[in-house]
Amino acid sequence: MANKKVHILDSTLRDGAQAEGISFSVDDKLKIVRALDSFGVNYIEAGNPGSNPKDLEFFRRVRDIELENAKITAFGSTRRRDVEAADDKNIISLLSAGTDTVTIFGKSWDFHVTDILNATLDENLAMIYDTVSYLKSAGKEVIFDAEHFFDGYKANAEYALKCLEAAESAGADQIVLCDTNGGAFPGEVFDITKLAVEKFETPIGIHCHNDCGMAAANTVMAVNAGAVHVQGTFTGFGERCGNANLSTIIPCLQIKNGIDCVPGESIKNLTSVARFISEVANVSFNEREPFVGKGAFSHKGGMHIDGVSKAAKSFEHIDPELVGNERKLLMSEVAGRATILSKIQRVSPRLQKDSPETEAIINRLKELEHEGYQFEAAESTFELVIRKQLGKYKPFFELVTYKIISEDQNENGKTGGKASAVIKVLVDGKEEITAAEGDGPVNALDRALRKALEVFYPTLRDLHLTDYKVRVLDGQSATAAKVRVLIESRDARSAWSNVGVSTDIIAASLIALVDSIEYKLIKDIEVFL
Amino acid sequence: MANKKVHILDSTLRDGAQAEGISFSVDDKLKIVRALDSFGVNYIEAGNPGSNPKDLEFFRRVRDIELENAKITAFGSTRRRDVEAADDKNIISLLSAGTDTVTIFGKSWDFHVTDILNATLDENLAMIYDTVSYLKSAGKEVIFDAEHFFDGYKANAEYALKCLEAAESAGADQIVLCDTNGGAFPGEVFDITKLAVEKFETPIGIHCHNDCGMAAANTVMAVNAGAVHVQGTFTGFGERCGNANLSTIIPCLQIKNGIDCVPGESIKNLTSVARFISEVANVSFNEREPFVGKGAFSHKGGMHIDGVSKAAKSFEHIDPELVGNERKLLMSEVAGRATILSKIQRVSPRLQKDSPETEAIINRLKELEHEGYQFEAAESTFELVIRKQLGKYKPFFELVTYKIISEDQNENGKTGGKASAVIKVLVDGKEEITAAEGDGPVNALDRALRKALEVFYPTLRDLHLTDYKVRVLDGQSATAAKVRVLIESRDARSAWSNVGVSTDIIAASLIALVDSIEYKLIKDIEVFL
Repeated sequence: MANKKVHILDSTLRDGAQAEGISFSVDDKLKIVRALDSFGVNYIEAGNPGSNPKDLEFFRRVRDIELENAKITAFGSTRRRDVEAADDKNIISLLSAGTDTVTIFGKSWDFHVTDILNATLDENLAMIYDTVSYLKSAGKEVIFDAEHFFDGYKANAEYALKCLEAAESAGADQIVLCDTNGGAFPGEVFDITKLAVEKFETPIGIHCHNDCGMAAANTVMAVNAGAVHVQGTFTGFGERCGNANLSTIIPCLQIKNGIDCVPGESIKNLTSVARFISEVANVSFNEREPFVGKGAFSHKGGMHIDGVSKAAKSFEHIDPELVGNERKLLMSEVAGRATILSKIQRVSPRLQKDSPETEAIINRLKELEHEGYQFEAAESTFELVIRKQLGKYKPFFELVTYKIISEDQNENGKTGGKASAVIKVLVDGKEEITAAEGDGPVNALDRALRKALEVFYPTLRDLHLTDYKVRVLDGQSATAAKVRVLIESRDARSAWSNVGVSTDIIAASLIALVDSIEYKLIKDIEVFL
Repeated sequence: MANKKVHILDSTLRDGAQAEGISFSVDDKLKIVRALDSFGVNYIEAGNPGSNPKDLEFFRRVRDIELENAKITAFGSTRRRDVEAADDKNIISLLSAGTDTVTIFGKSWDFHVTDILNATLDENLAMIYDTVSYLKSAGKEVIFDAEHFFDGYKANAEYALKCLEAAESAGADQIVLCDTNGGAFPGEVFDITKLAVEKFETPIGIHCHNDCGMAAANTVMAVNAGAVHVQGTFTGFGERCGNANLSTIIPCLQIKNGIDCVPGESIKNLTSVARFISEVANVSFNEREPFVGKGAFSHKGGMHIDGVSKAAKSFEHIDPELVGNERKLLMSEVAGRATILSKIQRVSPRLQKDSPETEAIINRLKELEHEGYQFEAAESTFELVIRKQLGKYKPFFELVTYKIISEDQNENGKTGGKASAVIKVLVDGKEEITAAEGDGPVNALDRALRKALEVFYPTLRDLHLTDYKVRVLDGQSATAAKVRVLIESRDARSAWSNVGVSTDIIAASLIALVDSIEYKLIKDIEVFL
């Protein structure tokens, strides 16, 4: 019954954006598109141009990106009850997105047709048929999402199936059974999907929500029943409790059930892609997440640690390296060593797993992680930690003092901030003091620091900050909480990122800024050597 | 096949305490015992006296608590290979806990017996038999956990079943099938559980881990197959990805499948019990958690909001009140006019959809959203916008000036921030100027502002900030980018949240802080009216 291959549709940018607290900028969306494409999903459902006009800018800009694996998909609904498909403004918007593939959702639960749409059951069938056939005639690949299909089937099986028939006879390329409210259970999902797979020639897909904690299980059961197209979001973001989590489902299918979802070599990037998307969305990562969480292969109980030391499979259902994750033995000095070693050897190739320097670096990393540092998205800070620990580090400057003054301008009663920074640095015994103004204290500090240092290091003129993120750790301490600042920088040759942690956002930003500058100066020297 | 009643065993205090970052004090454990007992679980597995000697204090103190529903259970393993059960020091510790019920885990996977325990297959059967019969002869109710049962069954079905036979013939009261590594899938869990239920007279239980995201589904499937005893942890804490989450499973079984787990009147306390345990464990709550998360019944998409306004079941699989949770309609660019109108009418009931005031408010909201505001998590700022637009707003104070000085302490060469804020406010023609220091500029500002205003408004002493979040919008402008600050506040009566946006993090924080204070003062007046 199992298939050898399923298609993956990621809806992080559409259904995921419906989650509380998530709001992607166009730049965020483009970054996620690149990551999902190189990971190898088949479809990226990227927005609903009809309900969200600013998505059109995204669809315009995404055309300039050359994609290797994925097709960009725009999302919309069946035509309104009282207009032709060609005249429906949402469908016009949908076509204006200019994608080769579109997803159309239509009702398949009789109650929704009559009570929410205020349409007759026959009108809804015509809406499905007309919309799909109009989009087919416009040359699109059409994915039909049968909204509330499982609830609809349980309420009125005959009508729910008629909705699928309408989509099939209009030429839909794929028909997706949706558990929109997330209330279905694995047994019924298996049975109902199997029936649809047997009844229709069109490939059947599955789209689940997690309101009963069953989204991943329901998806796997639907694939077991013959579904060949899987919809979800990469980190499980979505309305209410979220969508089926692709970072769970892809390894469940591909590693554990032998069903291909993405290119074989991609699966080892699963953890980093999940973390990347979570960082871009600025959502704190659930470390208990299957496969990709830091806890997924962490062992704390003494008997468990003893077991995995004897044979990994004793307490691990898969090898963590398959998904780019790693084993962690909590309160154990061997934690993480193998992974860290490769980074250490880039700086000092002679060091081995059991060298005392390796030990010292690992201890320092643990201390920093305990303080709130995270190095996933800040490899250059990580490299600086290694260099400092090994003495392979030249302090290019000393920050002698800084002072920042922020005050209101109080024009027309509006609170508008004005900030200026005074900074003094010491380079080779020479002091330089300077000042700058900025949009807020961190910007003022950034400008002053670079202005002072450019006197000594003219190559810093090439340094550009390209991104700045703030994450409040332990938000419950409110304005006294620790913050983690992540900055991305680039020059003409490369890009890098750095991290700083402090209870003071200015101090945290400064740590990351100083790291970024030092990293550039080290790079510049190495080029000249 | 479905049972009318299952027993619930909560292992938050034992398996849950094996999770990374969780460490309960004895007082914490006693608090959780009281909460679980009054909620109505049948067993509370509270510790492993053999591997954790400090649990003995807990077992001594818990005897003084009178329990209504639950039995306290101590946890331990089968005797060691080379000693009698009566002489095994772990079993002696287990008995010293003085509980009427004990859980004993034993191996049921041949590989674990030979490669981890270094015992023969027959020795392990004797260890199971002897331990269970010794504890029975000591008058205990014995729950036998067959560790790795599903992996064991798949590797060597005959031997795995022999382990259960040994436990049954020694008199075990319940036999629990464990998916210790969390690698099993719902279909196989159903089939294997069904076989065990049919083969044994002893009641069968289920214990699942979440390494494939299947723990809740596997548990429900096992109950469908005839299991009558369910183990899990109330918030899903546990080794690696955690245990089966009882706050998901209990409502899935009781509300959605008609299988009783806890007294009928308890289920409405589900959300508060889950939050309470999470608070005691000091773990931040996953708001996407099924049934109990704040997001579980939150609606953001315009069509979803329209749907639930017409009929709740259109986008909710159960009534949130059944589990003590509530519906939330989020404000956002995709939210419809209908949602906004209901909020406007709370301030001014006479206004209609097409009133010019409604139009003006919507235009103002659009402007603010365009600037980067987001109201979905900041309902009180939203209400203030409406009030200001309608003139239903009294300015309680004027912020005349502020000045913040941030500088380094430069002790031992470490960059440590120090910040102080000076603030001047005007209330009814009277000026108040004051200053405060803080952990960073925002904290200093927050303290100074409240210190100045408490002179005029003493009820502000009740105001506490409970959360502070920062989101950098358009990170690519780097340190000059706009930031959105979200703060949550509470007093003795309620909780609310506010948002501020600016390119200056201090100005953005100030906007949100001022809003929070104004909202509290409005609330206080309304109470007196």
